[in-house]
Amino acid sequence: MNTADLGLPVDVPSTALFTDQYEYTMVQAALRAGTAGRRSVFEVFTRRLPEGRRYGVLAGTGRVLDAVENFRFDAGVLGFLRERGIVDEPTLEWLSSYRFSGDIWGYPEGEVYFPGSPVLRVEGSFAECVLLETVILSILNHDSAIAAAASRMSSAAGGRRLIEMGARRTHELSAVAASRAAYVGGFDSTSDLAAGFRYGIPTVGTSAHAFTLLHDSERDAFRAQIDSLGRGTTLLVDTYDVAEAVRTAVEIAGPGLGAVRIDSGDLLLVAHRVRQQLDELGARDTKITVTSDLDEYAIASLAAAPVDGYGVGTQLVTGSGHPTCSMVYKLVARATAPDGPLEPVAKKSLGAKTSVGGRKWAARRLDADGVATAEIVGVGPVPPELADRQLLTELVRGGRTVAREPLDTARERHIAARAALPMSAIQLSRGEPVLPTEYV
Amino acid sequence: MNTADLGLPVDVPSTALFTDQYEYTMVQAALRAGTAGRRSVFEVFTRRLPEGRRYGVLAGTGRVLDAVENFRFDAGVLGFLRERGIVDEPTLEWLSSYRFSGDIWGYPEGEVYFPGSPVLRVEGSFAECVLLETVILSILNHDSAIAAAASRMSSAAGGRRLIEMGARRTHELSAVAASRAAYVGGFDSTSDLAAGFRYGIPTVGTSAHAFTLLHDSERDAFRAQIDSLGRGTTLLVDTYDVAEAVRTAVEIAGPGLGAVRIDSGDLLLVAHRVRQQLDELGARDTKITVTSDLDEYAIASLAAAPVDGYGVGTQLVTGSGHPTCSMVYKLVARATAPDGPLEPVAKKSLGAKTSVGGRKWAARRLDADGVATAEIVGVGPVPPELADRQLLTELVRGGRTVAREPLDTARERHIAARAALPMSAIQLSRGEPVLPTEYV
Repeated sequence: MNTADLGLPVDVPSTALFTDQYEYTMVQAALRAGTAGRRSVFEVFTRRLPEGRRYGVLAGTGRVLDAVENFRFDAGVLGFLRERGIVDEPTLEWLSSYRFSGDIWGYPEGEVYFPGSPVLRVEGSFAECVLLETVILSILNHDSAIAAAASRMSSAAGGRRLIEMGARRTHELSAVAASRAAYVGGFDSTSDLAAGFRYGIPTVGTSAHAFTLLHDSERDAFRAQIDSLGRGTTLLVDTYDVAEAVRTAVEIAGPGLGAVRIDSGDLLLVAHRVRQQLDELGARDTKITVTSDLDEYAIASLAAAPVDGYGVGTQLVTGSGHPTCSMVYKLVARATAPDGPLEPVAKKSLGAKTSVGGRKWAARRLDADGVATAEIVGVGPVPPELADRQLLTELVRGGRTVAREPLDTARERHIAARAALPMSAIQLSRGEPVLPTEYV
Repeated sequence: MNTADLGLPVDVPSTALFTDQYEYTMVQAALRAGTAGRRSVFEVFTRRLPEGRRYGVLAGTGRVLDAVENFRFDAGVLGFLRERGIVDEPTLEWLSSYRFSGDIWGYPEGEVYFPGSPVLRVEGSFAECVLLETVILSILNHDSAIAAAASRMSSAAGGRRLIEMGARRTHELSAVAASRAAYVGGFDSTSDLAAGFRYGIPTVGTSAHAFTLLHDSERDAFRAQIDSLGRGTTLLVDTYDVAEAVRTAVEIAGPGLGAVRIDSGDLLLVAHRVRQQLDELGARDTKITVTSDLDEYAIASLAAAPVDGYGVGTQLVTGSGHPTCSMVYKLVARATAPDGPLEPVAKKSLGAKTSVGGRKWAARRLDADGVATAEIVGVGPVPPELADRQLLTELVRGGRTVAREPLDTARERHIAARAALPMSAIQLSRGEPVLPTEYV
């Protein structure tokens, strides 16, 4: 059995319990009613972007593929479902040989999306598809929220290095997935070793205030750090007096000191002063990293400051005000006879939670300069004359994953997709989605 | 080896990589400088509550105890640290026999806290304590954020049943910890099977709109569900027309129908209409559950509605506007000689990020009626004449966990601690912390 790509530094034998109970009770009732095998199409989409956001960033697709492969039932899982009386014996029997055998298409990871974009489409029997709802949404809603925040921050950073360092502000495993999503969204590295271990993301980190406080003096601490980590290290200079710390740092390390880190105070002002001081001390190549409660707005406000890199924590791993997306997983079509045609279905009650029935395709319309002008969504087969760039790609065929890719591919795809959006996409101010979604 | 209580339905052999890289590089530099063994005291506290919140709720302590026990180094973890060049060979050697051997005291799980409350105190050598920073903060910052939101919701619900159903809105493992924290904060059950499996939390769930849409008619769907799950089930009545669905539901199930669920529309209005209709149909004992984008304010606004239970998703697992806490893990005292006295230390730079040095105790002052009036925090030994209720309890002694408890104990403790706060604690409106923190 493969191991699940859940951001764990360990193997996960099964993802089958990352699931709301009602998925299982629905399977039981459908098995008994003889409707469990009806061919069904589920789609993942969002009715709206988080308020004020101009585009979404799809992340987590690679994790979804592993979660689907590892949605299996061993004795422990089946025993739990039996002991708790969650499903009956015929259902347990059916689950014991469960293996997703259907098809999954989706926007490739890193692609941007808009309201109504069918970012994932899962097709197979009702029972095999409905069980996957919860874990698919968990992954996409979390990872896409982080990637969207990361993308805004990486736009704002304008090419300066970005370090993800939010592990301590979110669940320890959520943090690993957050590092991964941040990387897709344009970050360069992470402080989180589990993310380095699991996904090969570059890791960084040198020291904290505790290290300075441990020693008898800041001078002792700096000397200990340089003795052990070398002159290329980053010294934290704001435990006591910044100017004195910078002087001591260069005195001990010499002008080859790698970097200094500033973690408090008025970063704009302090960065300018520290840069001037470093230059005066001859440490012209010593870099400045800032790390205090940054978000995309703070990063943008430091554009004119002599800062070389940003470390971002809380606001990144909490999605900068939008810690989740509102993606849903909806049945949009199903057959009523074994070989019958797919028929569109949709909820019809009053209120906002309606959706468009039918199996969808999607494409991005570009103008003559290659700038995106619209997200085109249609129901049914793709029109043969369609000239726009199709967005859905095949991910799983007959239960077999066909679209693995390195994380760097998703990262590069994101940067290219963002670059093809109208310029207003990267404005940080609140606005409408930068592309209209047109149903054809 | 015990397995880590990380909310996984699987064993986790090690928590050692849920750690920022700088914890390891600090250990390396301190080992080389001869300062790694200095006796040190780290404390976890927050400088402020989330804006407008009146109290915090500590959750995750049980998970911290397991994470500490399972902070170990196997060949895979050591190999990663070596190959990436994160630490040198002497450090790898030291890590290979790592086992936390110090002491941990803390507020017991479910207790309320305020700015400055020393909710956890970790004492031992610098090196063994500093390594635990990231994973301890991950757990406490995440779990306490969810528990605080859950507590407000459970106050607002006034004894009506609360179901946690946010798994699809957060990372799949964060979701399991969120279920646990929500239970501590007063929730009754969860939809998340992994939370039931891992923590024994009661699980619930029956069906979704997809089940109705799968079938040829709503009537067919209801019949299929009742045939399989019995009359005590909960039928979802808002896929098409609510009034027609309620009529069909009672017609098929009879007046013994367990419950109906409403997931859209004006819940106040719809709940009243559905209650009236159910009563007219003789289904007086059929309960009403509502589940549409609820938060503590929406729950409170339904206080006068004939609602029996609330299902809460997004706003619960994202902390209802505050998805993390701002807890920090700070070195507050250390010895400079092997058997020397602990000396208070604190960061002193300009800016808001200062802290109070020294090893602390804490107590809650109550008035004659048993109502809390202040959070008392002192440095040094507990005054022998102290009459207030001490808050720090022993959790780990010499590396051995001494304070395991069932999750229900934490839940009951929380409800009692909240009940002892001044009445204004449970106002949902924004306000100041309901207790002042007094340093003595």
